[in-house]
Amino acid sequence: MTERRYDPVTGEWRMFAGHRQDRTFLPDDASCPLCPTREGQPPTEIPLPTFDVVVFENRFPSLAPKPPDPAVVGSELYAVAPSHGANEVVVYSDDHQLSLGDMEVDRIAKVVEVWADRYADLGGRDEVAYVFIFENRGVAVGVTLHHPHGQIYAYPEIPPRAQRKLDVATVHIDTHGTCVLCDVVAQERSDGVRVIAHNRSFLAFVPFAARFPYEVHVASLRHAPSLLDLTDPERLALSEVLQAVVRAYDRLFGFPLPYVMSMHQAPTDDGEHQHVSHFHIEFTPLHRTAEKLKYLAGSELGAGAFINDAAPEDTAARLRATTASRGEQ
Amino acid sequence: MTERRYDPVTGEWRMFAGHRQDRTFLPDDASCPLCPTREGQPPTEIPLPTFDVVVFENRFPSLAPKPPDPAVVGSELYAVAPSHGANEVVVYSDDHQLSLGDMEVDRIAKVVEVWADRYADLGGRDEVAYVFIFENRGVAVGVTLHHPHGQIYAYPEIPPRAQRKLDVATVHIDTHGTCVLCDVVAQERSDGVRVIAHNRSFLAFVPFAARFPYEVHVASLRHAPSLLDLTDPERLALSEVLQAVVRAYDRLFGFPLPYVMSMHQAPTDDGEHQHVSHFHIEFTPLHRTAEKLKYLAGSELGAGAFINDAAPEDTAARLRATTASRGEQ
Repeated sequence: MTERRYDPVTGEWRMFAGHRQDRTFLPDDASCPLCPTREGQPPTEIPLPTFDVVVFENRFPSLAPKPPDPAVVGSELYAVAPSHGANEVVVYSDDHQLSLGDMEVDRIAKVVEVWADRYADLGGRDEVAYVFIFENRGVAVGVTLHHPHGQIYAYPEIPPRAQRKLDVATVHIDTHGTCVLCDVVAQERSDGVRVIAHNRSFLAFVPFAARFPYEVHVASLRHAPSLLDLTDPERLALSEVLQAVVRAYDRLFGFPLPYVMSMHQAPTDDGEHQHVSHFHIEFTPLHRTAEKLKYLAGSELGAGAFINDAAPEDTAARLRATTASRGEQ
Repeated sequence: MTERRYDPVTGEWRMFAGHRQDRTFLPDDASCPLCPTREGQPPTEIPLPTFDVVVFENRFPSLAPKPPDPAVVGSELYAVAPSHGANEVVVYSDDHQLSLGDMEVDRIAKVVEVWADRYADLGGRDEVAYVFIFENRGVAVGVTLHHPHGQIYAYPEIPPRAQRKLDVATVHIDTHGTCVLCDVVAQERSDGVRVIAHNRSFLAFVPFAARFPYEVHVASLRHAPSLLDLTDPERLALSEVLQAVVRAYDRLFGFPLPYVMSMHQAPTDDGEHQHVSHFHIEFTPLHRTAEKLKYLAGSELGAGAFINDAAPEDTAARLRATTASRGEQ
């Protein structure tokens, strides 16, 4: 069973992928499928003795270039569609331990190059409307493989939360004449109290109305709709700030902090959204403290209304204290 | 710190409540604050030796009738507001063990009466726009007190997910001339394969495009915008179906299945939404199997696109096999 179904009550498409129940689940380090293939050992997913960054199609995809026909029959009320798109895995390096916070900036820059390349390639496909790059890090967010890696979902339509942001940005530009994220970046630079790292091209900050205590957003200082609009020096600046954010997390908590990292870029189906798409990355760790997690419960799951028990200014100060801003002072 | 902040990027209000960090956390049974006060013992939250259903204001509220002034200063971009509203706790009975699945139908009916009463009372307040009744059950969804209880959040505006449903229902009625949930109920009764319980007035089913493997929705057969529109026999029928759903969960899994239960009713700020508000309850358990949870990760948290690894028709059959439908055959 691999298909998409439309929920007429929320207006959202959902993905169904029955075979995902069989995913490899937390293998021991010696059996890691994302490590290089070692001489005399059975092959891993990657038939190479060393590598920088590797991308391959997820073996348990919920979206695929040539999906099967849906198993269920739809109706006028209940639309059904094949799971067109792609799920790719991006292995950050051949080192089983090396997370984004541990990697040198020039190695992170290679990951950024790969992201840009995949965004262009997947986005250019007819069946793809939106390329979503993300990383799930840590067992607390459901990770099934420890080797540092990210994922890419190429959706056949703009997914609900991205669409919502585009709609809100469109209203904002119609009302104020400006990109809302350009305005947010300007205000955060001016206020300063929620900034945790910055350099010549990027800003990392705890958002003013954060959903999670240690949520951090990374945004480009200038209006760039996607990675493709960033110059090489800007991509290097992005790599620096990503390293700084993950290092701040890991230093403050004293362990690799689990998080979801989500990259928001322009949809790839048309050129219409360039003026309301401002490149940014959201880090959403679930931890409230080293021992306690924030759970998504009634208010969040049912009503969509988030409760945060920490002041963004306070968590930003704690994260900032672990790091020093780089580049321009 | 108790305040609300507006996120201009998503157009959502978020609640901030710093004192919630001090909430009572999983006390042992003898120290349960939701049990009756026993003679010679220190008083619990409820100064009564026995009771049916009790409601009181949450001691650690994120919304309150007389909230403090916000601590932060807002701006044109970043709106700030006091946390007007209410958070109430509904203790289902004086029995520390008795969940909705264990209670007799007439006792559940008393809880339903209290919900209706609170919906009317809170909804009648000037500062309240939407009354949201829910239950978080089990440590897996972050419960901090085991004694069976639910909660009520009275929000000062319609929360994001409720607003989304109202918007989608409005488009549906404008296009098709019908209430979308009336159409869903008709299709589910006709298809039958996703129904897990039904009687003369209510239907329980796994939704066609469920977000979670064991998600179950309970909807009124006729178009009733809220509990206030249900007759006494209908409220009794609702109690029967709620009992059947929770019993099916607990029988299938062999333990009290953790879930979030969310009740969706008409907003209370005006009469405008009556025709697009159809009373329904969503049960969202996180369990995929007895051992494995569904995690909300990149696709869900970042993009808002849910992946479900189980066919709703299959999980419905498993739940249905544990129970027998009641009432009309």
